[in-house]
Amino acid sequence: MRKVRVDLPENGYDILIGENLEEEIASYFAEAGFSSRVLILSDSNVGKVHGEKFAEMLRRVGKQPSVLLVPAGEGSKSLSEAERAYTKAIEVGLDRKSVIVALGGGVVGDLAGFIAATYMRGVPFVQIPTSLLAQVDSSVGGKVAVNHRLGKNLIGAFYQPKRVFIDLHCLTTLPRREISTGLGEIVKYGVIFDEEFFEYLEEHAEAILALQPETVEHLVVRSCEIKAEVVTKDERELGLRAILNFGHTLGHAIEKETRYVRYNHGEAVAVGMMGAAYLSHEMGLIENSEVARLRALLEKFSLPTQAEGCTEDGMMAAIIHDKKAVDGKVKWILMEAVGRVRAVTDVPEPTVRKCMRMIVSD
Amino acid sequence: MRKVRVDLPENGYDILIGENLEEEIASYFAEAGFSSRVLILSDSNVGKVHGEKFAEMLRRVGKQPSVLLVPAGEGSKSLSEAERAYTKAIEVGLDRKSVIVALGGGVVGDLAGFIAATYMRGVPFVQIPTSLLAQVDSSVGGKVAVNHRLGKNLIGAFYQPKRVFIDLHCLTTLPRREISTGLGEIVKYGVIFDEEFFEYLEEHAEAILALQPETVEHLVVRSCEIKAEVVTKDERELGLRAILNFGHTLGHAIEKETRYVRYNHGEAVAVGMMGAAYLSHEMGLIENSEVARLRALLEKFSLPTQAEGCTEDGMMAAIIHDKKAVDGKVKWILMEAVGRVRAVTDVPEPTVRKCMRMIVSD
Repeated sequence: MRKVRVDLPENGYDILIGENLEEEIASYFAEAGFSSRVLILSDSNVGKVHGEKFAEMLRRVGKQPSVLLVPAGEGSKSLSEAERAYTKAIEVGLDRKSVIVALGGGVVGDLAGFIAATYMRGVPFVQIPTSLLAQVDSSVGGKVAVNHRLGKNLIGAFYQPKRVFIDLHCLTTLPRREISTGLGEIVKYGVIFDEEFFEYLEEHAEAILALQPETVEHLVVRSCEIKAEVVTKDERELGLRAILNFGHTLGHAIEKETRYVRYNHGEAVAVGMMGAAYLSHEMGLIENSEVARLRALLEKFSLPTQAEGCTEDGMMAAIIHDKKAVDGKVKWILMEAVGRVRAVTDVPEPTVRKCMRMIVSD
Repeated sequence: MRKVRVDLPENGYDILIGENLEEEIASYFAEAGFSSRVLILSDSNVGKVHGEKFAEMLRRVGKQPSVLLVPAGEGSKSLSEAERAYTKAIEVGLDRKSVIVALGGGVVGDLAGFIAATYMRGVPFVQIPTSLLAQVDSSVGGKVAVNHRLGKNLIGAFYQPKRVFIDLHCLTTLPRREISTGLGEIVKYGVIFDEEFFEYLEEHAEAILALQPETVEHLVVRSCEIKAEVVTKDERELGLRAILNFGHTLGHAIEKETRYVRYNHGEAVAVGMMGAAYLSHEMGLIENSEVARLRALLEKFSLPTQAEGCTEDGMMAAIIHDKKAVDGKVKWILMEAVGRVRAVTDVPEPTVRKCMRMIVSD
């Protein structure tokens, strides 16, 4: 088992990464000092498989767990599902020292985290992410949220979990496309922070796609380390943390333009990273060869490098209304090299539009 | 103009207290570095009188304000009003550096604060409390929340404002009962923290009820100082801050039993403080004369010392489900003297029930 520390001054925590962590998890809940009631939030897919088994394990260590299942899918990241969860929490008697557990992918983690952040002004929260995307991205760093019908993640908080348990065994049953979406964010870590890691991905692409255990462990550990380092330096995204947004401004626009149906998050981010790479080239920051290197790696991982079903004007509008924009100005994260990015706020609109056209296909 | 500092390490702020603060407020908004859009949240009473004038003042300093009015009354502290406010915020283009202003009493402050805490994971927030209760209590300290149909303030956060402006001129138009409810919390500050202040209240009761300006200023300043000192030492209520809860465990039970209609918050807290004083006497902590001294001051301020319409069993149930209870155990804040309290968790149920009967009338 490996451990990554998110070393925040007031609310630091450990991420434990390994296979078959049941005993580890059981002894943590036995000793962590939470009160007896526990709310396990999961979705209709993951919860059906793991929910009752997990609850039984908590009962063995003297807890009184309740399981709440939400429908699988992004639609559950809503205020109305949150309200249903508050009601459940109150009805089963969760108090201020009760823990809420997120058992599932990113939707479950974001929703459960938002509920934990706001129920009784904040109760303890533990993440048990079961998808690769959630393991390397959303479960680490404390961004929690629900969606508003006018935009994603518009209602949320920064709220750190008490601990994250990443059981790599979960990945073996994931559909191939779910692995790819996680790889989108993993490639991002290489681009923004660590050329050596990017090289590792290039060299081990086959082992990664075959889910070779040591390789997968390294991927997840290194991704969590990078995210932890960035978040530790800038928990509330006042500066550095914005680099995690590489590929996301255009990625979010693609998701919005295609109504969150055609592409999953990692796929949209892959296309968004290509757009950001083109922008970086247009702004004279990188060579064409570096753009090509990114494209080649994304293609190895079966990730798209162009998106269908998007209009240039629709994407422009989405970008200006992105929640990272201030007074309508977008802060672009652009590449200086593979492994290094920086924020640029003065990219001319014609340049943006040109690069958009390069990532849109009919 | 007087200034009280809430000296928190990361998010400290000033409370400015005086009369006719318009110019002060205008220059603050001109210079604070917020982006151009501003959302002013107010209620149908206060907003009708002050909303447009306030928006006009912000326009003069170059801002683009929008006003959102919610119905006056506790019913507006709901997730559905919050959702309406998020929609408004998105529609008018509030970004992450836009400020949300609470212009009103405690309901407006709690609701606006909850929205500010959660919109885009937190935007700047300024409190302009217009009721005495909000000026001395809810606008200071960062507790924000909305209600759930199963209980008050169950959905919320700790989220500090950037600044609080307390314009004492507002008080001159408040109904007498609104002054009394604020005095309930003010008496509490004397009991929990400052015997000298308690004496001041005893000696200046007539001047206070006549709203004599220097006296009122002292009341508000000293109350804010005490609350600021407690909050500074324990922002998230891990220990000391619980003393602010004096009179509130029973007070909340009374509000709940009477469906939040018969008594306002300060009145319920007044009765709750009497109950806590009786409990303190039963537990051998104070003399009967100290109980009598509290009762006499509350009566001077036309505050009730007994409540009608409450049942003992209903209050017991409410107390066990109070959000401060952990694993069903209540932490009582009891008097050791006028000016000093402490937490006690092992008060026997028959003693609690006896004191409940003492504060219930037919």
